[in-house]
Amino acid sequence: MMRIVDFRSDTITKPTEEMRKAMYEAEVGDDVYKEDPTIKKLERVAADIVGKEAALFVPSGTMGNQLAVLTHTERGQEVILEDWSHICRFEVGGIAFLSGVQAKTVKGTRGVMSLKDVNEAIVLDNDIHHPQTGLICLENTHNMAGGVVVPIDVMNNIYNLAKENKLPVHLDGARVFNAAVYLGCEVKEITKYTDSVMFCLSKGLSAPVGSILAGSEAFVEKARRYRKMFGGGMRQAGVIAAAGLVALDKMIDRLKEDHDNIKLLASKLNQIDGIEIDNESVQTNILMINIESSKYSSKELVEEMKKRGILTSVITDSIIRFVTHRHITKDNINYAVDKINEIMN
Amino acid sequence: MMRIVDFRSDTITKPTEEMRKAMYEAEVGDDVYKEDPTIKKLERVAADIVGKEAALFVPSGTMGNQLAVLTHTERGQEVILEDWSHICRFEVGGIAFLSGVQAKTVKGTRGVMSLKDVNEAIVLDNDIHHPQTGLICLENTHNMAGGVVVPIDVMNNIYNLAKENKLPVHLDGARVFNAAVYLGCEVKEITKYTDSVMFCLSKGLSAPVGSILAGSEAFVEKARRYRKMFGGGMRQAGVIAAAGLVALDKMIDRLKEDHDNIKLLASKLNQIDGIEIDNESVQTNILMINIESSKYSSKELVEEMKKRGILTSVITDSIIRFVTHRHITKDNINYAVDKINEIMN
Amino acid sequence: MMRIVDFRSDTITKPTEEMRKAMYEAEVGDDVYKEDPTIKKLERVAADIVGKEAALFVPSGTMGNQLAVLTHTERGQEVILEDWSHICRFEVGGIAFLSGVQAKTVKGTRGVMSLKDVNEAIVLDNDIHHPQTGLICLENTHNMAGGVVVPIDVMNNIYNLAKENKLPVHLDGARVFNAAVYLGCEVKEITKYTDSVMFCLSKGLSAPVGSILAGSEAFVEKARRYRKMFGGGMRQAGVIAAAGLVALDKMIDRLKEDHDNIKLLASKLNQIDGIEIDNESVQTNILMINIESSKYSSKELVEEMKKRGILTSVITDSIIRFVTHRHITKDNINYAVDKINEIMN
Amino acid sequence: MMRIVDFRSDTITKPTEEMRKAMYEAEVGDDVYKEDPTIKKLERVAADIVGKEAALFVPSGTMGNQLAVLTHTERGQEVILEDWSHICRFEVGGIAFLSGVQAKTVKGTRGVMSLKDVNEAIVLDNDIHHPQTGLICLENTHNMAGGVVVPIDVMNNIYNLAKENKLPVHLDGARVFNAAVYLGCEVKEITKYTDSVMFCLSKGLSAPVGSILAGSEAFVEKARRYRKMFGGGMRQAGVIAAAGLVALDKMIDRLKEDHDNIKLLASKLNQIDGIEIDNESVQTNILMINIESSKYSSKELVEEMKKRGILTSVITDSIIRFVTHRHITKDNINYAVDKINEIMN
Repeated sequence: MMRIVDFRSDTITKPTEEMRKAMYEAEVGDDVYKEDPTIKKLERVAADIVGKEAALFVPSGTMGNQLAVLTHTERGQEVILEDWSHICRFEVGGIAFLSGVQAKTVKGTRGVMSLKDVNEAIVLDNDIHHPQTGLICLENTHNMAGGVVVPIDVMNNIYNLAKENKLPVHLDGARVFNAAVYLGCEVKEITKYTDSVMFCLSKGLSAPVGSILAGSEAFVEKARRYRKMFGGGMRQAGVIAAAGLVALDKMIDRLKEDHDNIKLLASKLNQIDGIEIDNESVQTNILMINIESSKYSSKELVEEMKKRGILTSVITDSIIRFVTHRHITKDNINYAVDKINEIMN
Repeated sequence: MMRIVDFRSDTITKPTEEMRKAMYEAEVGDDVYKEDPTIKKLERVAADIVGKEAALFVPSGTMGNQLAVLTHTERGQEVILEDWSHICRFEVGGIAFLSGVQAKTVKGTRGVMSLKDVNEAIVLDNDIHHPQTGLICLENTHNMAGGVVVPIDVMNNIYNLAKENKLPVHLDGARVFNAAVYLGCEVKEITKYTDSVMFCLSKGLSAPVGSILAGSEAFVEKARRYRKMFGGGMRQAGVIAAAGLVALDKMIDRLKEDHDNIKLLASKLNQIDGIEIDNESVQTNILMINIESSKYSSKELVEEMKKRGILTSVITDSIIRFVTHRHITKDNINYAVDKINEIMN
Repeated sequence: MMRIVDFRSDTITKPTEEMRKAMYEAEVGDDVYKEDPTIKKLERVAADIVGKEAALFVPSGTMGNQLAVLTHTERGQEVILEDWSHICRFEVGGIAFLSGVQAKTVKGTRGVMSLKDVNEAIVLDNDIHHPQTGLICLENTHNMAGGVVVPIDVMNNIYNLAKENKLPVHLDGARVFNAAVYLGCEVKEITKYTDSVMFCLSKGLSAPVGSILAGSEAFVEKARRYRKMFGGGMRQAGVIAAAGLVALDKMIDRLKEDHDNIKLLASKLNQIDGIEIDNESVQTNILMINIESSKYSSKELVEEMKKRGILTSVITDSIIRFVTHRHITKDNINYAVDKINEIMN
Repeated sequence: MMRIVDFRSDTITKPTEEMRKAMYEAEVGDDVYKEDPTIKKLERVAADIVGKEAALFVPSGTMGNQLAVLTHTERGQEVILEDWSHICRFEVGGIAFLSGVQAKTVKGTRGVMSLKDVNEAIVLDNDIHHPQTGLICLENTHNMAGGVVVPIDVMNNIYNLAKENKLPVHLDGARVFNAAVYLGCEVKEITKYTDSVMFCLSKGLSAPVGSILAGSEAFVEKARRYRKMFGGGMRQAGVIAAAGLVALDKMIDRLKEDHDNIKLLASKLNQIDGIEIDNESVQTNILMINIESSKYSSKELVEEMKKRGILTSVITDSIIRFVTHRHITKDNINYAVDKINEIMN
């Protein structure tokens, strides 16, 4: 059987043995009645980690983000978000469909929106023609920019701007622990510049299922009602929450290893003709390579790599994404680089 | 510690030891990439059981029902459903909010809508004033009617009526296995009179989390996209699907025990002054008692029972619901009846 | 050319000569800039007539009702309304589509919902499963009940019930002037038991186009914004408002004539075998005849009448509607009765 | 009384004497029953002018655009439109609220989107994460770009691109007659590169109220149903349609005068220190002046002009808009320039 090295996403990580044991032993109840002790414990721990009053367990990051937009906004408002943000591009147009709000996109530099651009995008003038701004969304780390960290001072400045305008800020923090590890800070140093945050237990942290939406108690109670309507209220959800608790307890620090591996991968691919890398964006566990100058399109190269067991994702015609995670070792990286060298020469 | 007998709902059932083991050992993959083998197996098994082409695992029955309504209808249409159906009363108004369709309610007799009433509710006249019918929903067993089974010939007749009018039929079959056990037939004998069916793995069948939405392949693929938007797409969901497979394999036949227990409970409570029971509706695992002629309101009596460890649900001012399930034994029933006797005398 | 007597609806009334002159001479401005003096005058006059702080001119009664529901409610709530109300049956399912709210229908007696039924329909319990009530809608006169007047004490009682529950009441008063004429009171004696009211300038009052939505200033300003979104903001709308002012000034009192005519028509049709009339519902300018015991279906009889120039509307298989208005004279009624006698014998 | 010169918008134009007469004499019927002869005539004439099968009279351009988006798309899709388009910025976020579709904005050069950018914005890949493109919208002339004409070859190319991708194209042609006059062509030479077009009778063409939405018969019939739901179905709407017929018959050619006047205004303002004009964008009846280098903010300068009877609109902090129309004469322009000179020196 061919050796497979799967760089497609950190979403593919499987639960650890400890997680499986925790699931096996989980104390459970009916969470719709708020009686699942493991869910309650996870929501308490999660809220504390991001420094919020309360937290809600949701089946996916998409549900967490969509509930946040719905809970913060009124129909007909606009949501300011980065042009290539996950909410805008990878959530099936949910904010228009589910929340009836219009995307007001701002193009960022490496995923980071400038304060000036965000400021210009805000509309709060009461002219009855204009959709009014209802929310600002950030994404940290920014997936499509290549796992780039939005610096704390940028978050701070946008948060202050939002507060001056009485606007809420939501953070799509699917990989916010990667940001914290990169910055060497506690995650709440980042999330304190937000009103709500969603983070995933199931990406680098390796839990099989689930994300957290955290914010004020009032926010979470309102979101809980919408979660029920979306069908995200689960019964003995403690079985999955148990894995989430292990994820938060044991899996955060090891993200550094993924970051080291992406740097290793980048440095090696950088030496291959036909592959360009924006070194400034190599920060966490995502690597975007540009192969415009090679003889391949993204689709072709991804196909060639796949034939050799190296799985990656097409982003655009000339950009391919690699993601490192718990199942990617240094040895895997060397193996992959060899295969890519083979293809590119 | 007080003995607790929890008749509130079969949703509170905890996973069996076998389910926990299956979860521990589950082979998993990323289901958003359609690579989770346990999910795929569960979806295949589930589709076969209800006699449909395809099936989709969803985190809850509410999501299954809401996806069905959204997938079958166009905005601005009407959905015909029983006045006290779960979709109408217990899903947070989702069909209006999420699907933009209007509830056209028909009052049933013991939850069963008459063919004549359904026929009269259909509007397909192209008058631009009128919302046009887009879907007929059934619920079998009917929760709020007291777990009543909608007879197969009624389903057959309504299905034929729907087909004459080129309308789809969706079955909220949260407890359709209870109906099949009651009728002594295979569940697909019931579901063949539907275009789509949702059933729960997590009620009487005792799985911790999850429901199934089944229908044609085209229907399921469309629903899969909406599931992603709602945030119901999960990653290594095989960990929960594993318990669902056990539920389908081992837990269906034992529902008969719950039905026997509800009959026992009904026969005993029937002898207590102040409690009225509609014996015709005592069919599966739900019992509604009417205490109008007692000195208590529902809230008061539920409170009195709770003080003695007997947990039940208020339905209206004079109606209280009991549900039997895996954790309710004959002994529990005798114990509960003793306590209720104590209160009522 | 065949003589035509058009009983289909009072919506077909054409503008009077005085209205045409007023339109010709209307002083106008741009109403989106709030600079049309005729619109402003009409909105002031209209608000005063119904005893509200402010009023908004809208292109149709449907827009007025839909804006009211949208302005009063939040997505996911329920609106209590009579089963055969115009909002529920003749507005294309708009309240679900546009406002995301669920219809909670109450069957009335001759269009009048009982206080008990309305009370039972209210849900305000914070159970996250339940859609919560957000609005009560009344219709006076009730079109499908046959132009029946909802008595003032019923309105008063429902209004008090609403206030106890902190719920708003909206009146679909498309024909509220017919109700006032029937009751011999000022229209504001009726509308004082509502938070908002829509009435039509274009039915019995004969203006060519337009309706009024009235309520508190805050309500109207919010509705104005939604009107813009729906595309109901018009520019030199004073040209039509001018006719509306004539309607309010000159056309209200003459509605009595329509009521007298409907009584005349009812008394004559009552004598024809095969036609049944519920005399208690013969109150204003609408007459429903039941022809169940005749040899005709509604469609057939309407067709037969049409051949003879008598235009009416099919309501159900056995019910046909006649509406009187400015273009229907006593002579027309005698003519129509002759023709119907001809057909029925 | 101070002389007023109102450059705020061509929406403020009042009906001509001939329009008033036509309204006075209009033959009318009930348009909801499709029986208003003047509406029918206007819809026929309008459809022919833009070369479409059918047309629908709507109370405003906003309703025409919103109906077009709703009729062409499915919920959850994306609509490609220029970043500063009217639909995106001046229609209260309606496309998200009413149609549940996401705005995918493309920044144009002087309002004109490049073929390459439109091509890149199209997403039709069936990845369940991605909102799929459902519609491309153009605006010609482009209001916020300063009344700039989108060249026919650009329309042709985008239309071909759309067809290759099986996408519909809607034209917001609020001022498409200005484009045709500028290009010296028939309007259907422009609209033939669209599937649907909305144009206004009430801007430069001076009708008091109303716009037209035109397209295929199937499209118009579907839109007619949605118009009813929005409340845009009007009764004796022929009274306003009559003015619309005059507008189409008599008012198109005179738009050239407005274009000449804007050129005159531009050439004179160009000579004033502190006012910058992008001469390439001076094409039709709109002029944007940039006063960044002056001592005034837009708000201040607009206020100063207002004190002298010159009315204009603030667009951004440094951009002010002038619009010419039927009530602006050469003399008005000279007067206005004098006053502005006074202020700027």
